[in-house]
Amino acid sequence: MQRSNPLGFRTFVANLGIKDGTRDFSVVASEVPCAAAGVFTRSRFAGPSVLLSREHLGDGSVRAVVTVSKNANVATGERGREDAAEVVALAAELVGCAPEEIAIGSTGVIGRRYPMDVMRAGIGKVEPAPEPDFQAVAEAIMTTDTHPKLVRATIGGATLVGVAKGVGMIEPDMATLLTYYFTDARIPAPVLDAMFRRVMDRTFNCVSVDTDTSTSDSAVILANGLAGEVDLAEFEEALHTVALDLTKQVAKDGEGATKLIEVLVDRARDEAQARTVAKAIVNSPLVKTAVHGGDPNWGRVAMAVGKCKDETDIDPDRVEIRFGSLTVYPADAPDLDALTAVMSADEVLIHVSLNTGHAQARVWGCDLSDGYVRINADYTT
Amino acid sequence: MQRSNPLGFRTFVANLGIKDGTRDFSVVASEVPCAAAGVFTRSRFAGPSVLLSREHLGDGSVRAVVTVSKNANVATGERGREDAAEVVALAAELVGCAPEEIAIGSTGVIGRRYPMDVMRAGIGKVEPAPEPDFQAVAEAIMTTDTHPKLVRATIGGATLVGVAKGVGMIEPDMATLLTYYFTDARIPAPVLDAMFRRVMDRTFNCVSVDTDTSTSDSAVILANGLAGEVDLAEFEEALHTVALDLTKQVAKDGEGATKLIEVLVDRARDEAQARTVAKAIVNSPLVKTAVHGGDPNWGRVAMAVGKCKDETDIDPDRVEIRFGSLTVYPADAPDLDALTAVMSADEVLIHVSLNTGHAQARVWGCDLSDGYVRINADYTT
Repeated sequence: MQRSNPLGFRTFVANLGIKDGTRDFSVVASEVPCAAAGVFTRSRFAGPSVLLSREHLGDGSVRAVVTVSKNANVATGERGREDAAEVVALAAELVGCAPEEIAIGSTGVIGRRYPMDVMRAGIGKVEPAPEPDFQAVAEAIMTTDTHPKLVRATIGGATLVGVAKGVGMIEPDMATLLTYYFTDARIPAPVLDAMFRRVMDRTFNCVSVDTDTSTSDSAVILANGLAGEVDLAEFEEALHTVALDLTKQVAKDGEGATKLIEVLVDRARDEAQARTVAKAIVNSPLVKTAVHGGDPNWGRVAMAVGKCKDETDIDPDRVEIRFGSLTVYPADAPDLDALTAVMSADEVLIHVSLNTGHAQARVWGCDLSDGYVRINADYTT
Repeated sequence: MQRSNPLGFRTFVANLGIKDGTRDFSVVASEVPCAAAGVFTRSRFAGPSVLLSREHLGDGSVRAVVTVSKNANVATGERGREDAAEVVALAAELVGCAPEEIAIGSTGVIGRRYPMDVMRAGIGKVEPAPEPDFQAVAEAIMTTDTHPKLVRATIGGATLVGVAKGVGMIEPDMATLLTYYFTDARIPAPVLDAMFRRVMDRTFNCVSVDTDTSTSDSAVILANGLAGEVDLAEFEEALHTVALDLTKQVAKDGEGATKLIEVLVDRARDEAQARTVAKAIVNSPLVKTAVHGGDPNWGRVAMAVGKCKDETDIDPDRVEIRFGSLTVYPADAPDLDALTAVMSADEVLIHVSLNTGHAQARVWGCDLSDGYVRINADYTT
C-alpha cells in the first residue's frame, strides 16, 4: 500500500488562545536532520519570523517548521524580534532540537505583539499527534481561507506532502501566503535549494490575487532523506505539480473570488516580458471585474497590454488576444455567444500572443467581486 | 469687469449621434495661431488620436482641439488611423485651418471604428456658439463623469480656463483622461512646453484612480497671446492651481468613489522614491477598501510601504505613518475615536515619513467601493 505521509515527521497542532478558540499553533518536525530550502517575501516590512527563518535556513538545514496564526508579529519593533526568538526557543524545546534548526511562519494582524503569556504557558504542553496529521496542520495555518489546502505525491519510494494557506495580501488585516513541503526523499541541500527556487518561481511567484505583497510570505521545504534517493527530475516534476495545484487552490480561494483566471502570454521577446504583460493583465481591476461580470471585454486586455510602457517592441498591430481559444483581436466580428460561454466558466483563460519572440509565461489570479470590497471594507480593526 | 473667457477662442459643441443623443463632438478653436504643448499616454496601444496630436504638436503650435466622445477609436488598425485623419480634415475645414493645426482627443469604447457616415454628414454642419461656451465643452467631453469639470483663473490681463473629463481607466469600457487649457496669455512655445510638463507632472501624473492606464490620455494647452505677455511665474502658479483643482475633481469623481485620498510621503531619499511609495499606498486595494470602510488599518499602509521592494534604504524601524496628523506607527495606543473621525471624513490624508532623506511627493486617489465593482462588472459590451 502506498504511504500517504513521508517517513519520520511528527506534527503538533493546538489552540493557544492567541485570538480565539480555533487552532493557532502548529509544528511539523523531523526526527532526523533535513536538507531544507526557503523562499520569502521581499517586503521591506518583513517580520521577525521571516528574518529568523532566512537566517536559520542559511546553512541549508532545519528540522522543524513552526507556524503561529492569528498574529503576524510584524511592525512590532525590537520587542517583536525578542518575542519571535523566544517562541522559536520554546518550540525547539518542544521538539527537542536547537533553535537554529527551526523555521517559523507567522500570519495574522500586523502591528500587535504576540500574547506571550499564553504562548509561554501553552507551547510546552502541546502533544504530538499519535500519527502525523498534515490535514490538521493545513487547517491550523489557515486564517480566512475557506478550506485547507493539502496535496500529496509519491516519487519512487518517497512521499511528498505540500500545504498552503492564504490568498496573497487579500485578507481583512491578515497578510500571508504560507506554503510548506515535507518529503522523506534524500536530496542534497544545494540541489534542493536550486530546485525549490525554480519551482516556486513558476508557481507561487506567478499567483496574484491583488497587487498587494505580504509582509510574511514564506515557502519552505524539508527533505529528511529517510526514503533514500529518488530520480531528481521526477521529484522536481512532482514538486511542480503539487505546488501548481496549491497555487491554483490559493488563487481560486481569493477573498470574494468566484473564478480562476489563467493568463498565458506567449511569442514574447523573453520570459521577463511575457511575465510583465501577464501580470499587468491578471492584476488589472478592469480585467478582473470584466471576468467577474462574464464580459468578453477584450478592450480592457488591450489596455492592460498597452500599459506595459517600457516594452517598446510591442506593436499593437501584431498583438493577438484570445479568450480561451477564441480570437477577439484582431477580429472583425467575434462570436458573442461563444465568448460569453467562455467568460461564464469557472476558469477563464486569457491568451495573448505578443509576436515579439518565442518566450512565454503563465500566471494565475482571480476575479474582483463586490465580496472582496465588502470583506475588506467592512472589517474594522 | 473681469473677463471669464480668454480672448479669441470659439467653441463648437454638437451631438453627431455617435452612440446616443448626448453631446459627443466638440471643438475649441483660436482665431489666431497659438503656442501649444501636449502630454500624452505612454500606452503601447495609444490610439490614432494620440499619435496625430503628438505629431501636430511637434512644432509647438496648433490652433484647435477636437474631441470625439463615446468612441475611443483605439485598436482599430490602419482603417482607424485613416478615420482619425479624415475627422481631423473635416474639423480643419469647419474651423478654417490646416489639418496640421488640429489636436484631437477621443474617448469611449475600444476596438470599434468611428461611425464615419454620421460624422461625415454631421461635422460640416456644426455651428460655433455665439459666445464661447467652455461649460458646454466640459460637458461634451464627459463619458461617465458625474459632473463637468471646469476651472478658471486670471493672470494679470490674461485669462486661463481648464477643463477635464474622465477618471483614469476606470469607466466601464471607456478609457480616457482628457484635460485641456486655453489662455490668451502670450507665452513662447518652448517655455510653455517646459512649464506644462512641470505642472502636469505634479498634478495629473499624480492622480491614480486605479492602476489602469488609458490608451488615450491627453493633456493639451493652447496660448494664443491675444492678451499679451504675463508674469511667467505667476502664470505657472495659476496653471498649477487650476490643474490641481481639476486633478482632485477627477480623483473624487472616480467610479464608485466616496472619498478623496491624499497621500503625502516626505523625508524621502529623493522625489522618485517618495512617489514610488506614495503610489504604492494610493493604489493598494487594501488601503483603498480600508479608507472606504473608515478603518484606521495602518498595517495595510505599512504593507504598501513594504512592497516597494527595491527601496532597500527604507528601514521599518525609522518609518512613521500618520492618518491626518495622528501618528499610528510607531505608536503604542493610538486614539481610536480620533482616528475613526479622521477616516470618516470626505478627504483622508495618509502621511508617511520614510526618514531616508528630505524629498517629498503628493499623490491623489479615491477609495475602492463595491460601486466600482458593480459598475465595471455588470456592464456588458
